[in-house]
Amino acid sequence: MTTRNPKVVAFGGGHGLHASLSALRLLEESKEVADITAVVTVADNGGSSGRLRKEFDVLPPGDLRMALAALCGRSNWGETWASVLQHRFAGSGELNGHNLGNLLIVGLWEQLGDHVQALDWVGRLLGARGRVLPMALVPMDLVADVHGLAEDPKATTEVRGQVAIATTSGVIDSIRLVPEDPPAAPEAVQAIADADWIVLGPGSWYTSVLPNLMVPALREALATTSAKVVVVMNLDEQAGETQGLGPAEHLAVLVQHAPEIPIHTVLVDPEMDGLSDLRQTAAACDARLLEHVVAVPGTARHDPETLSKAFAAIFAETGAQQAARA
Amino acid sequence: MTTRNPKVVAFGGGHGLHASLSALRLLEESKEVADITAVVTVADNGGSSGRLRKEFDVLPPGDLRMALAALCGRSNWGETWASVLQHRFAGSGELNGHNLGNLLIVGLWEQLGDHVQALDWVGRLLGARGRVLPMALVPMDLVADVHGLAEDPKATTEVRGQVAIATTSGVIDSIRLVPEDPPAAPEAVQAIADADWIVLGPGSWYTSVLPNLMVPALREALATTSAKVVVVMNLDEQAGETQGLGPAEHLAVLVQHAPEIPIHTVLVDPEMDGLSDLRQTAAACDARLLEHVVAVPGTARHDPETLSKAFAAIFAETGAQQAARA
Repeated sequence: MTTRNPKVVAFGGGHGLHASLSALRLLEESKEVADITAVVTVADNGGSSGRLRKEFDVLPPGDLRMALAALCGRSNWGETWASVLQHRFAGSGELNGHNLGNLLIVGLWEQLGDHVQALDWVGRLLGARGRVLPMALVPMDLVADVHGLAEDPKATTEVRGQVAIATTSGVIDSIRLVPEDPPAAPEAVQAIADADWIVLGPGSWYTSVLPNLMVPALREALATTSAKVVVVMNLDEQAGETQGLGPAEHLAVLVQHAPEIPIHTVLVDPEMDGLSDLRQTAAACDARLLEHVVAVPGTARHDPETLSKAFAAIFAETGAQQAARA
Repeated sequence: MTTRNPKVVAFGGGHGLHASLSALRLLEESKEVADITAVVTVADNGGSSGRLRKEFDVLPPGDLRMALAALCGRSNWGETWASVLQHRFAGSGELNGHNLGNLLIVGLWEQLGDHVQALDWVGRLLGARGRVLPMALVPMDLVADVHGLAEDPKATTEVRGQVAIATTSGVIDSIRLVPEDPPAAPEAVQAIADADWIVLGPGSWYTSVLPNLMVPALREALATTSAKVVVVMNLDEQAGETQGLGPAEHLAVLVQHAPEIPIHTVLVDPEMDGLSDLRQTAAACDARLLEHVVAVPGTARHDPETLSKAFAAIFAETGAQQAARA
């Protein structure tokens, strides 16, 4: 029996998802991963995406664009179009701050009338080594319950919108989605069912990573798939949304928001503080903890190269176990 | 000796150039034309192009985009991207009225820093059956001397800008460019030198067709090339810039603006009024007149199909003469 190369679905948004996809792309190129699907948070309401949402009532395209760029083909063609899609208009006029790729994605949605088909067209343009899907087919709003904002330190305040939540000076207790049961892309549900591995994180914990798990159709698919879940811990707390939270608390927050999703592996950089707490929390939710250098030295950014090696170790070990069992 | 299929350079802008390129593309597909180059007026200052010019001080991209769309490959790929590039944003916000293709071209210019290279990238995206070049590498302003605007009917008023000229209520005597000697794309000069046929018109006579002839480097190339020039007459006068002008006056205006460029053939639809005057004017400048149905019946629009047949007749006859002489 040969071990099949895994199909992987990565969840998140923004720079965190860009990091995990860049690492997975390396494994796709070396044939250690068979198939990559990204499922992207569509709750952003700031910057170019927020303006486009407001003007056209569309999904925020920015994180979808970044995920597509992360997967672009390594050819002059793919890399040139990726750089063009990432181009941000400067100047001081009406286009200032808009990304060309965001405008292209919105134009394709309007022209083709189908979210997934339009993103597939951008993927083909980039020669993308994987597929990028939105977590929901309608633009989402995030709502967080936050304490520490009112005079009574135990009182809870409702904070609305990704930008406000990401920059709150309070402590976030939980988040939820509005609408609470949005339509999911059937392609995303199917990809989860077909996957061997699910990658959650890294990324803005409350505004990029958790929202995916709050979409009922995706959550149900995640609870019932035979795929194993790896959680990639962040390399630092994030001013605003996770101020003062250590790795153990990050993991606990995730479990608290989606207790029915079993976690197989928690991946963390050994240089992080609070590893003994994390070890306990991982053990409490029956997950194994893998310590592997994944940071660009001296920074809080994930290095695609070392992250890909950590993924390869996780996927291969499990493959070996499967082969041994067979 | 075999007759070589001709290389053609078509000049103009907007819908007129779109019509001549659509016709030439048909001949390229049937192998009756070997090579198409479009040289496009960059003096537009209205609409989406005008806004982009103002915001970024770039060439107006709109007519370049339309020329590229006219040449797009006949495949699902080429036609889909052409329709996406032609997509115009609606709504009531800051993007209202912008064409996605205009934004893409400006982004490519900013990202790649080279006008011609960027247009070639769009051409490759569309699978374009020819090359699209700007008439100059800097944005141009048009200035027209117009009479009939002042109290003294013989007094001349200077009207500035494409939009103002195209909609003047006076009578245009002549136009000129600011700057008067702009840098031309070397690729355009070379294409003229290598061409067998030059196509001038149809299109907005003063604001799309003539400006190309006012660029000194192109004008010199046109005066010295061995290529033959065919002038495609418009199917109607144009409210504003050519109000009250018949075909003979259109031709006379062209000759008056560029007397050193020899005209080989004047192509006109037989349904036009004023053909006997046109015949005289054509004879006076040593051009032959070809009457050929080229209009979509009942409209003032050129039909790509019949226009392509007219071009084929012009190119083939000359090819036969060449073969007979050889």
